[in-house]
Amino acid sequence: MNQFKYEDYKALMHKIKDLEYAAAVLHWDMETYMPTKGIRFRSQQLATLQALAHELYTAESTGILLKELVNDKALDELQRVNVQLSLEDYEKATKLPNDFVKESSLIRTEAFQAWLKAKEANDYSIFRPALTKMVENKKQEAALLGSNGHVYNALLDQYEKGAEVEKLDLLFKDVREKLVTFVKELKEKGQSSPSHFLNHVFPKDQQWSLGLELLKQMGYDFEAGRQDISAHPFTTNFSPEDVRVTTRIDEKELMSMIGSCIHEGGHALYEQGLATEQYGLPLGSATSLGIHESQSRLWENNVALGLPYWKANFALLQKTFPAQLSGINVQSFYKSINQVSPNFIRIEADELHYHLHVLIRYELEKGLIEGSISTDNLNEIWNQKYRDYMGVEVPDDNRGVLQDIHWSQGLMGYFPTYSLGSFYAAQFFAQAMKEIPNLILEIEQGNMKPLLDWLREKIHRQGRRYTSEELCTQICGEGLNLKYFMDYARRKYSEIYEVF
Amino acid sequence: MNQFKYEDYKALMHKIKDLEYAAAVLHWDMETYMPTKGIRFRSQQLATLQALAHELYTAESTGILLKELVNDKALDELQRVNVQLSLEDYEKATKLPNDFVKESSLIRTEAFQAWLKAKEANDYSIFRPALTKMVENKKQEAALLGSNGHVYNALLDQYEKGAEVEKLDLLFKDVREKLVTFVKELKEKGQSSPSHFLNHVFPKDQQWSLGLELLKQMGYDFEAGRQDISAHPFTTNFSPEDVRVTTRIDEKELMSMIGSCIHEGGHALYEQGLATEQYGLPLGSATSLGIHESQSRLWENNVALGLPYWKANFALLQKTFPAQLSGINVQSFYKSINQVSPNFIRIEADELHYHLHVLIRYELEKGLIEGSISTDNLNEIWNQKYRDYMGVEVPDDNRGVLQDIHWSQGLMGYFPTYSLGSFYAAQFFAQAMKEIPNLILEIEQGNMKPLLDWLREKIHRQGRRYTSEELCTQICGEGLNLKYFMDYARRKYSEIYEVF
Repeated sequence: MNQFKYEDYKALMHKIKDLEYAAAVLHWDMETYMPTKGIRFRSQQLATLQALAHELYTAESTGILLKELVNDKALDELQRVNVQLSLEDYEKATKLPNDFVKESSLIRTEAFQAWLKAKEANDYSIFRPALTKMVENKKQEAALLGSNGHVYNALLDQYEKGAEVEKLDLLFKDVREKLVTFVKELKEKGQSSPSHFLNHVFPKDQQWSLGLELLKQMGYDFEAGRQDISAHPFTTNFSPEDVRVTTRIDEKELMSMIGSCIHEGGHALYEQGLATEQYGLPLGSATSLGIHESQSRLWENNVALGLPYWKANFALLQKTFPAQLSGINVQSFYKSINQVSPNFIRIEADELHYHLHVLIRYELEKGLIEGSISTDNLNEIWNQKYRDYMGVEVPDDNRGVLQDIHWSQGLMGYFPTYSLGSFYAAQFFAQAMKEIPNLILEIEQGNMKPLLDWLREKIHRQGRRYTSEELCTQICGEGLNLKYFMDYARRKYSEIYEVF
Repeated sequence: MNQFKYEDYKALMHKIKDLEYAAAVLHWDMETYMPTKGIRFRSQQLATLQALAHELYTAESTGILLKELVNDKALDELQRVNVQLSLEDYEKATKLPNDFVKESSLIRTEAFQAWLKAKEANDYSIFRPALTKMVENKKQEAALLGSNGHVYNALLDQYEKGAEVEKLDLLFKDVREKLVTFVKELKEKGQSSPSHFLNHVFPKDQQWSLGLELLKQMGYDFEAGRQDISAHPFTTNFSPEDVRVTTRIDEKELMSMIGSCIHEGGHALYEQGLATEQYGLPLGSATSLGIHESQSRLWENNVALGLPYWKANFALLQKTFPAQLSGINVQSFYKSINQVSPNFIRIEADELHYHLHVLIRYELEKGLIEGSISTDNLNEIWNQKYRDYMGVEVPDDNRGVLQDIHWSQGLMGYFPTYSLGSFYAAQFFAQAMKEIPNLILEIEQGNMKPLLDWLREKIHRQGRRYTSEELCTQICGEGLNLKYFMDYARRKYSEIYEVF
């Protein structure tokens, strides 16, 4: 009888996930292959799929089923975890009335349109009214969701369960003090290694092949995925057995292609590593955005911006681009791809300054949601923070407050997960070095399997069994600790910049 | 109040169509880009979408709404046609229980996989178990649908409203007698014009570009569609503004690529010509497979296998393949692409023998469904019929019973529409020549617009307003008449084979 009810629950979750994954296929197609005129009905089709999935999830009958099951002593431990998490999701989802969900969708559409127009005119004031509405909407959402402590917590919790202003304030204070000091030290006392050869032209076809080669080496399964081109790189998945990545290729930006391939590859490995038998259930899903980002960052930064990785791959790189790399050796290449300098564009930032970009967005979002910052002159506040934290002068709104798509999509509370991801990544990588015999040597030989196996076991296979913090404690014996990131940064960049 | 109900009806139909089109996107992706391991969950996702669409369509509330609306005197004529046709669809659809629909979807997916494996091994016995299951499923379907007369009528009616064994038996008898006699006459008394130059190698990239060029010339809108590669060419659509075609390219088969591009292009023009304001409604849908096929055949055969078409395009062909076509003129090219000879592959058949291929499939399907033929030795029965009707020896299963995808997709009752399509096409083209001033001259100049405009007005814009036979009568003043096809065939091939 109980197993029967659990089967009902599974069937329902499968149905909902099938709809969500179908929407993901439509979205993938929209970003890769859809002809221009397809957009009108595609938008309608996406809205229909998403509304149906939401209706199914928030149906009263779903709540009844989950509440019955959650108290069922006959479930085994994994089954109970699934049901508990689904009930949590249900309770969150039903806190937002349908009218509010619809209204939010309209506000997002409007905000996105306004953002596009503002970008075209390079003028924040065009986006301001829509952003003001969006902030109001997000305040309402936070109120409906409810939270202990700071009002912004409700939004943070949607992307990172357990993330709270009270903790993040401390973390980012630490980041600011330690990272700003360190970056300043590098700038003042360090030796930079300019990288003129990166200004060469790297033809698209060769970049494409190289990207595929590097993905294969990581362990990305091309029988369970594929890479395509899109305007903005992304990873999407339709099951653990169909996980797709996209990249973009600029002939003058070799490292941008490599970084994006490996970053998306890291996300994709997480999804390919999820348990297929838990399809559609919490234990078959990634635990949080922060942990997801830890997987992309670990590969992108800790692995692929490291010297061992290039000891393994520099020969391939030279073979692919013999003219462009003539006279460069692996040491100088490694140094040149690890130059740090302040800039005003987040997605072009190096792995140290990146967190100052996130810090600024965190402070602004928190201020907007708690009401201490107004949208009136947000562009000026933005620019002032860039002056204060990085010493750069933002030249215009497009390279300032308008640069990210997130706010126009209602994604508030999302940015901090980018930094959390990097910090978790550094901590996980430190632990992996302790546990995997000769990890660095393996990487130097292009053998990524020991690392991937470790990530599979420790993280991917766990699904949503643990929160980010629980998972981190489980793996490392302690929760998130910035020390690991700072140790990594100091060791690596002191050497590169010859600051001892 | 009535308009309000009609709006409810429209919203419901949109929702259903959104689900069906989403399934079409998933299916397109499966045939073009999906990685191999994606199949397992993709099948499940497709089944879920199709089941949901079916559930919505067959819900009791849908029936109540349609029955209320159909008697509503306040609807205008077009609205009434929509509601009447939807009610007919509803009544047909409610004959199939949800569980049956879901099971059928799984059987299809399984059969498709088995067919792929069988093709790989060139071994019918690998496909047999899945085909046996499929035939049982189709018998059940026919029984559930019910029919007057022959049991196979229930399946025929799904693709071609009004098609019946009792009529098709007569038509195919006529086809066999007249066509076989004529083909024999050509063989015995005619002059063949061998086409050795077609055995050259035509590189894939140039073939691809040529195909795109020819599609563009027909009026195919690449902003509302795209072409990709797949194992078996097909057309699919996700709205009239996103209609996709696929082709395949064999370097030794130039005419196969050209034929498939133009054939699929003809289908696609029909879909791109449907009324966008009738999205999801019967008036925004194609009327039948026979009429759909008439559009692909009209372009493929009556237009693109004609001398005027090649007067327009021979220069482009020569420019694309100068070496391969050296010493060939448009007359000899025209003759060589219109050589008729019996062969065992349907999709490589000339436009005369083609109908003998369809005849064989028609007889086999009818036999399988009525139970007079078993799947046990279907490959042998297949081969015997090719001996009997065409005097050819089928060399293996891949070039015999495994050659078509249809049965693996549950498409039984479908093949006859191919012949109906050709016969309607000949009749429509004869009418177009009467009505469009200088049609042949326009085609000779590469101007396809007058023909497309005529097809748009007479056929595409009509949606499902008329059945095939009504539409034919509306356009030509009489129902389907094989005379037009035979006249076309006799006139064309008597000249090519110099038989007078």
